[in-house]
Amino acid sequence: MSASTRSPEQPLAGVRIVEISSFVAAPLAGMTLSQLGADVIRVDPIGGAADYHRWPLTDDGTSIYWASFNRGKRSVTADLRSAAGQEMITRLICESGPEGGILLTNTAGRAWLDHDTLARLRPDLIRLEVLGRSDGSAAVDYTVNAATGFPLVTGPPGHAEPVNHVLPAWDLLCGIYAALSITAAIRHRDATGEGSRITLPLEDVALATAGNLGLLTEAALYGDRRPRLGNGLYGQYGQNFTASDGGEFMVVTLTARHFRDLAAVTGTGAALAALAPALGADFSDEGTRYRHRELLTGLFAPWFREHTTEQVSTALAATSVLWERYRTFHDLVHDARVTRNPLFTLLRQPGVGTHPTPGTPMSVNGRRVPPRPAPELGEHTAVVLREELRQRTPLPE
Amino acid sequence: MSASTRSPEQPLAGVRIVEISSFVAAPLAGMTLSQLGADVIRVDPIGGAADYHRWPLTDDGTSIYWASFNRGKRSVTADLRSAAGQEMITRLICESGPEGGILLTNTAGRAWLDHDTLARLRPDLIRLEVLGRSDGSAAVDYTVNAATGFPLVTGPPGHAEPVNHVLPAWDLLCGIYAALSITAAIRHRDATGEGSRITLPLEDVALATAGNLGLLTEAALYGDRRPRLGNGLYGQYGQNFTASDGGEFMVVTLTARHFRDLAAVTGTGAALAALAPALGADFSDEGTRYRHRELLTGLFAPWFREHTTEQVSTALAATSVLWERYRTFHDLVHDARVTRNPLFTLLRQPGVGTHPTPGTPMSVNGRRVPPRPAPELGEHTAVVLREELRQRTPLPE
Repeated sequence: MSASTRSPEQPLAGVRIVEISSFVAAPLAGMTLSQLGADVIRVDPIGGAADYHRWPLTDDGTSIYWASFNRGKRSVTADLRSAAGQEMITRLICESGPEGGILLTNTAGRAWLDHDTLARLRPDLIRLEVLGRSDGSAAVDYTVNAATGFPLVTGPPGHAEPVNHVLPAWDLLCGIYAALSITAAIRHRDATGEGSRITLPLEDVALATAGNLGLLTEAALYGDRRPRLGNGLYGQYGQNFTASDGGEFMVVTLTARHFRDLAAVTGTGAALAALAPALGADFSDEGTRYRHRELLTGLFAPWFREHTTEQVSTALAATSVLWERYRTFHDLVHDARVTRNPLFTLLRQPGVGTHPTPGTPMSVNGRRVPPRPAPELGEHTAVVLREELRQRTPLPE
Repeated sequence: MSASTRSPEQPLAGVRIVEISSFVAAPLAGMTLSQLGADVIRVDPIGGAADYHRWPLTDDGTSIYWASFNRGKRSVTADLRSAAGQEMITRLICESGPEGGILLTNTAGRAWLDHDTLARLRPDLIRLEVLGRSDGSAAVDYTVNAATGFPLVTGPPGHAEPVNHVLPAWDLLCGIYAALSITAAIRHRDATGEGSRITLPLEDVALATAGNLGLLTEAALYGDRRPRLGNGLYGQYGQNFTASDGGEFMVVTLTARHFRDLAAVTGTGAALAALAPALGADFSDEGTRYRHRELLTGLFAPWFREHTTEQVSTALAATSVLWERYRTFHDLVHDARVTRNPLFTLLRQPGVGTHPTPGTPMSVNGRRVPPRPAPELGEHTAVVLREELRQRTPLPE
């Protein structure tokens, strides 16, 4: 790469990555690496992979999902079942200059894409494979999630069934872990010339996270003592409230100051001062606020339901209390958080239309990487194969 | 650093990072960078930061949370309000060899830690600050989440209130994005000698993700047309089912083969074959399966409730169907997924006890980085300050 294209917000400029993937984790990893400056070429079978028609769809049947997670990539399609197609893609991975030789995939079980096969042609290969489970068996976000414990403590208290979160959190975390692992492996290769064979099981991302949050330790020591708290916080005071006109608020107090401010704005300071000695409760302690959460919610709720959404918003904004209105996706897309946020750019995506599209959540030296549209499926097949492969020598037999 | 400590699974060996942080996102970033080999020194005020007593707690009051998110770090405490303390930590950040000069923080508003202040002493400074919102205002996972749209489509259909997910997904994603941003910035500095001033707002992580998932695009084009689906999947067929003895299962079909297998195992193939022409439905299409989800659930549910958990598990295991049992945290910590998973090591954590502790979810060349215990608060103050600062020249005035 030329030094001129390298910038602090695009530290992977010059890097070439081939992505053979579908669904969420690996495509998000590829998109993220592309946002960091890498040239990411997504390779799909002719007609598209299993996620090419994934919902949400436009009324015309274009996958909004696909257009979203493939932004900024180039798209090559090939007959991946034919020897010629496999040789072509093998070359694309392996004969791609000193900053190439990187494969991101979640398509297990294809011998021609195995690490050892490719590393024979490209000894400094970096290959990351997203697995379902570490034993190679299939798993997806929704099934992994069922085993993690979260659905049994999510949702309304007293609800009989598990409650899955709708956010595909494990896929998303796995995708960013994959981008991190590849970036770290690139640094290692820069310094040593060594490649890396990386495997990243979706299930292990979830299990490591449950462990990192201390939930498995707590369960190992004390069993299942964490209750289903609805929208309350474990070990802190936080709760949702409804205003007189139906506006819904999430309110959180993490510090004694937050809590004093919430008492003051709701006019409950005197009642709390009277209650504290009667209950032997020190409300400056987070655990005490947690233990008395139902009482506190009962004390604060009338103020919310006797004020409008606007009155509540104005009053809370003048305090240190952490709070937010609940918004639908449609509310959000028309809110200043999106419309006036430099994170978003109005981008025209062929087949989908013009809509606010996020760039990178991080900014570097005050600059963000703006979003680029997704390719059409196969859009770059001819260009990539001609430019990249024409001049190359035959593969060794 | 010596080449001998550098390995593909610890590509950041030799890198020195100072972390001044609290709560989840920044501490997770620091722990993750430590797992990648960096020497991460967490600096806290004497007595600990605001998260030092964060729940979950042991019965003795030790924070399981704190012990978990600070694993593998060194701990230095100092009086951060005194000029002497500030000078000491400034030196620790800036006078730390060619692979030092990296600050990870979420503590805004301290002039002595500003990028420009530190960059005068360390021109190649890499400084990442996790913000609440991009305007610098405070926000936490729970309040950010309220604005994203997810709580209004999470939880049982017909439920009146928002349903927060319990997993602090935005904090977690933000932490891994932060680790990625710092790793990418290190690579850029290796190549160019340039530092980076990085800001990463928690709210922008959530907004970018809602955008990346296509949810904001769908809402911009069509309004709020995504219903609250309970444990169902949008645009696919997936549902939870209960066995005769109360075992709960999550079942997902992403492909026509998965769906045929689910029909076969539940003995509903003939009924589906009869229904398809009567309804004009092609069940090999994922959108068709989604539209007819209530019907399909009604068709499959009797088989589940007429078989035991063991019978259901055995039968599903012989198919391509994606499935998992719901488990509590306590079930999980005693399950083979944890007890026989090389991700976990039995680790003794002073003040907490011995318990299965996760390492990195990724493995490199077949090797994982095993977990290391968290320090005691301030454990390394004397060692770090003596070893690191004794030989240094005075700071410029």
